[in-house]
Amino acid sequence: MVSVAFKKNLKEKYGIEFNNEDLLERAFTHSSYANEHHGKHNYEKLEFLGDAVLELAISDYLYRNYPKLNEGQLTRMRSNIVRTEGFSEFAKEVGFQNEIYLGNGEEKSGARNRKTLLEDVFEAFNGALFLDQGMSAVQRFLKQTVYPLIDEGDFDASRDYKTELQEKLQINGAIDIKYEVIAEDESVPTFTVQLLVNNQKVATGTGRNKKAAEQQAAAKALKK
Amino acid sequence: MVSVAFKKNLKEKYGIEFNNEDLLERAFTHSSYANEHHGKHNYEKLEFLGDAVLELAISDYLYRNYPKLNEGQLTRMRSNIVRTEGFSEFAKEVGFQNEIYLGNGEEKSGARNRKTLLEDVFEAFNGALFLDQGMSAVQRFLKQTVYPLIDEGDFDASRDYKTELQEKLQINGAIDIKYEVIAEDESVPTFTVQLLVNNQKVATGTGRNKKAAEQQAAAKALKK
Repeated sequence: MVSVAFKKNLKEKYGIEFNNEDLLERAFTHSSYANEHHGKHNYEKLEFLGDAVLELAISDYLYRNYPKLNEGQLTRMRSNIVRTEGFSEFAKEVGFQNEIYLGNGEEKSGARNRKTLLEDVFEAFNGALFLDQGMSAVQRFLKQTVYPLIDEGDFDASRDYKTELQEKLQINGAIDIKYEVIAEDESVPTFTVQLLVNNQKVATGTGRNKKAAEQQAAAKALKK
Repeated sequence: MVSVAFKKNLKEKYGIEFNNEDLLERAFTHSSYANEHHGKHNYEKLEFLGDAVLELAISDYLYRNYPKLNEGQLTRMRSNIVRTEGFSEFAKEVGFQNEIYLGNGEEKSGARNRKTLLEDVFEAFNGALFLDQGMSAVQRFLKQTVYPLIDEGDFDASRDYKTELQEKLQINGAIDIKYEVIAEDESVPTFTVQLLVNNQKVATGTGRNKKAAEQQAAAKALKK
C-alpha cells in the first residue's frame, strides 16, 4: 500500500485525495512488481493515458497564458516541457520515488531513482488523477508543480543560453564545456552548478532544477 | 463568414452551436488569408491546441473502450489514428473544405482539397470546440466521426492486412503491389479499390475511406 504519510502529504500539500485508491496504487506499480505478484496491474496503461493528459494540460496552459507566442514558439515550449527530464524532478518533489512498487531485481539495480522510471510514474500518476477526478484536478496539481517553472522561463525555447554559449565558443574549434553540480538541496529543491570551459571555472548558476541552474550559469558566462 | 448552411448542418447533424463564433471563424482561417486581411487571426494556434485535444480524446476513448489491449497496442492504435490521413476524410465528411478562408495564391494552387490542410483544419476545429465548450463536446463530435471507424477496426494495428500481404508476397522476391481507387462516392462516403499484383487484378475492397477499402482488399487476397 502507498504509505499513509504520502497520502497525508498529497492531501495537505496538494489538496488531492483519491476516490478510487486502486488507481493510486496502480500508478505506482512497476511491471517488475506486477510480474511477481499475481493479480496486480502495472502502471503502463495509466502512463499511456497520462502522457496525453499532460500534453493537453500543458498545451492548454500555454495557449491561455502566453497569448503573444506564435504556434512555432508554443510547440517548441511544449516539447521542451514534455520531453524534458523535468518530470522526474517534479516526481521527486512530491516524493513519488519512495512509493514505487518494484520487483526484487529492479530494486537491486537501483531503478527507484532512475529518471526515466520517475518520469513514467509522473505520467501514470496524472493519468490516474485524470480518471479519478478529471482534468481540472490535474490542472490544480500542475499549478503547484510544473506551471511555476514554466513561468520562471525554464522551458523558454527562445532563451536557450546553453546552446547559445556552445555555439559561440565552438566557432574557434572544439572546446570542452562541462556543467557540474556543486551543491544540491533536494528538500527545497535548489541546485547549484558550476560551468567549466576547458576545465576552467567560468560561472556558477542556481535554480529549482539542474537544467535551470545550468541555463543561469550559461547566461552569466554569455554576459562576460 | 462561415456559411449559414454549414452552421445549420453543424447544429442539426452534430448538435454543435458555437457560443463564440469568432473561434469558429478562426478555425477556418488559413495564414495566407490572414496575411491578406488585416486583423484576421489564422488557425495555427488552435491547431496547436487541437492536436493535444485529439490526442487526449482518442487516448481516453481507447483506454476506456479497449480494456483488453496492452499499452503497446494502445500506443500503436493511437498513433495510427492520429498520424493517419484519416482526419482529412473526416474533415470532408463534415464539409470543412468549403468553409476554409484561403489567400488568392493558395486558392489557385488547389490548397482547398490538400489533405494536410484539411487535417490541420480538423485539428483547429477541435481546438476551437474545446475552448468553446470543453472536452465533452469534443467527445460527442468524435463519437459521430472518428470513433465509429475505430470500432470498425480501421486503425487496428494488430490486423494490418496490407503489410501482412506484402510480406507474404515478397518472400519470393520483388513483386509489384498496387491499389487503385475504382469507385468513389464522397457523399456517403464509400471507396472501392482494386488490388493489383504484378498488374493482375486479385481482389477488390470497399470501405468508408481509402485505407479501409485497401485493408479489405488485402484481407480478401490473403484468404485466397
